[in-house]
Amino acid sequence: MNYFSSDFKLGILGGGQLGKMILAETRKFDIQTYILDPSKEAPSQFGATQFFIGSLMDFDTVYQFGKMVNLLTIEIENVNLDALDKLEAEGLPVFPSPKTLRMIQNKGKQKDFYVENNIPTSPHQRFVDLNDLKKSIEKDELVFPFVWKCAQFGYDGNGVKIVRSAIDLVNLPDVECIAEQMVPFKNELAVIVARSVSGEVKTYPVVEMEFHPEANQVEYVICPARIDDKVAQKASDIALQVSQAFSHIGLLAVEMFQTADDEILVNEVAPRPHNSGHYSIEASYTSQFENHLRAILNLPLGNTASKVAGIMVNLVGEEGFSGQVVYENIEKIMAIDGVTPHIYGKRETRPFRKMGHVTIVNENMTEARKIAEEVKNSIRVIS
Amino acid sequence: MNYFSSDFKLGILGGGQLGKMILAETRKFDIQTYILDPSKEAPSQFGATQFFIGSLMDFDTVYQFGKMVNLLTIEIENVNLDALDKLEAEGLPVFPSPKTLRMIQNKGKQKDFYVENNIPTSPHQRFVDLNDLKKSIEKDELVFPFVWKCAQFGYDGNGVKIVRSAIDLVNLPDVECIAEQMVPFKNELAVIVARSVSGEVKTYPVVEMEFHPEANQVEYVICPARIDDKVAQKASDIALQVSQAFSHIGLLAVEMFQTADDEILVNEVAPRPHNSGHYSIEASYTSQFENHLRAILNLPLGNTASKVAGIMVNLVGEEGFSGQVVYENIEKIMAIDGVTPHIYGKRETRPFRKMGHVTIVNENMTEARKIAEEVKNSIRVIS
Repeated sequence: MNYFSSDFKLGILGGGQLGKMILAETRKFDIQTYILDPSKEAPSQFGATQFFIGSLMDFDTVYQFGKMVNLLTIEIENVNLDALDKLEAEGLPVFPSPKTLRMIQNKGKQKDFYVENNIPTSPHQRFVDLNDLKKSIEKDELVFPFVWKCAQFGYDGNGVKIVRSAIDLVNLPDVECIAEQMVPFKNELAVIVARSVSGEVKTYPVVEMEFHPEANQVEYVICPARIDDKVAQKASDIALQVSQAFSHIGLLAVEMFQTADDEILVNEVAPRPHNSGHYSIEASYTSQFENHLRAILNLPLGNTASKVAGIMVNLVGEEGFSGQVVYENIEKIMAIDGVTPHIYGKRETRPFRKMGHVTIVNENMTEARKIAEEVKNSIRVIS
Repeated sequence: MNYFSSDFKLGILGGGQLGKMILAETRKFDIQTYILDPSKEAPSQFGATQFFIGSLMDFDTVYQFGKMVNLLTIEIENVNLDALDKLEAEGLPVFPSPKTLRMIQNKGKQKDFYVENNIPTSPHQRFVDLNDLKKSIEKDELVFPFVWKCAQFGYDGNGVKIVRSAIDLVNLPDVECIAEQMVPFKNELAVIVARSVSGEVKTYPVVEMEFHPEANQVEYVICPARIDDKVAQKASDIALQVSQAFSHIGLLAVEMFQTADDEILVNEVAPRPHNSGHYSIEASYTSQFENHLRAILNLPLGNTASKVAGIMVNLVGEEGFSGQVVYENIEKIMAIDGVTPHIYGKRETRPFRKMGHVTIVNENMTEARKIAEEVKNSIRVIS
């Protein structure tokens, strides 16, 4: 198959920042791309061959979009899967497959899948709705505290709540959900696995999410994780096991917990480029976005090793600011060696909206970590 | 000045591969860009905020284009300078300035400039036309062999000819030209200097052009150059001297010869991103394209050091092939660690047309050089 400067057209469902960063690679390879996104202001509105505005959840819209392209991928899981089923049945390659997406879209199914495949994960219970969950509490089959997760359509921490007592149940939405046993963990880790159509597999190094000591928010994604080699090997092996179980094509980001006694528990997966791999643009021999393309196009996978240590800081809208965005002190951080801001292209900031990220690379991890803190303390996303 | 996700508009004259690679950086920073190029098929047709088709040499077209943007830069020197003069006089920042461009557009003026500024360069003579040159030969003021160069509008080796005897004069065009003394050189080197509006200056490492032993064509651009540290320091110092003399804003690529006795002679300059800096996308902390933007926007310059050794191989159309391009064996080279092809986005190949380049990065230069040869021997740009 000839992809380069040819008539081949890659379709991407979703035009957010992940789509935008995939587009940087399709431009590099001169591969034609069609993008579908509901917003005319989407970050991927520039750089595609054609940009279409439409609902990702509407059967007809997704189906008609799919009929225009030679291969279909996603940058967001919440898309109309029935349309993808029909497109796949009609012969269109869809990576990741609707089968994989269906398993992952529903957190209850995803957790059951881990159990069925002997993949270590925290114990869980599934509930068809809130009432079902409440009855389980009444019967003492579910005990406080637990982690409540809505089964579908959560993202970026939405749809997740720690439930410590009956009072925390009051504001929960009445939707299909799961309850997970709370696991005290030392580290939150992630491994991105690339798997191509032909079955070639490569893993990126284990990364570590460092949390703010008080706010319990991820502050830094750090590559490589500052953990024992044996733990890293275990995390990597389990990520590969998950990848094999899903038989996904493209990237699979596997999020894991490292428990107090160094067990690894799989938290959840994303079958696409992932926030935990953004550092790879500057730090890796091949970025996650390029390897996603290589995987779905059945090209040889690129080297997933790092050239230098990498740390990523998310740029999210500051509380109390809404409207036309201003990146305060961006010039200050750009004066530091190895600091690269990525601005996603959203004109309007809102509290906690993901507006961009900053990558810090350095030959020395300790130095990179110091600079990351300086970056974090300098730049503010305000209006 | 707020450039990021703002109303600020950067204009770029020219939409070739250099423009395309600048666009990758403006997308990363979400800076609005307007591009002007005469061809609707230009590599930069995607990724700009708006793409305009029009002549770069036409006064009105360039002037009207300039009136729509907040700052103007170029990716090709051959643009209408009178329009730039008028725009600059009316208050538009134009980087590089028309004054710098005028000096560089004419190779006679450029050589005189080096002499006036005590910058070492090979001896030269200027001629208003071919007849003027021939008279000089008759009078024994100009002796064979010499290097003939047309004064204006040459590019990529066009407009340069080695003249060994009277017979070589036959096919020369009747244009303003210069004759340069032939200098036997050991190495052809280049240094890219970034200089920002506020006068901050950074130089990239010295790179080396390795020639094919028989064909006398550049095969590899190698960073860092495999030369003595003292020679590298001298080349870097001279590049800085050239940069200071021009007081350019943006990038200045300074091409130099290293003579048999390790003298450095300046050959010519380009006031923009340059083929000799393409390796920087993968090998440097900050690519030349990002530093061009940083310089003209008066942002702090990024680190010009390398993370790893880098080698660049140009992909040019093979002789005997014209039409819809095919990159033969591209999958084979992509299977090698650290190999990244860049496809410029030209549908039609022609003999010697610049269609793309391949970057090879590796921790070890000897290994990189071996891989570069494998790449060079594998990939073919055919139809």
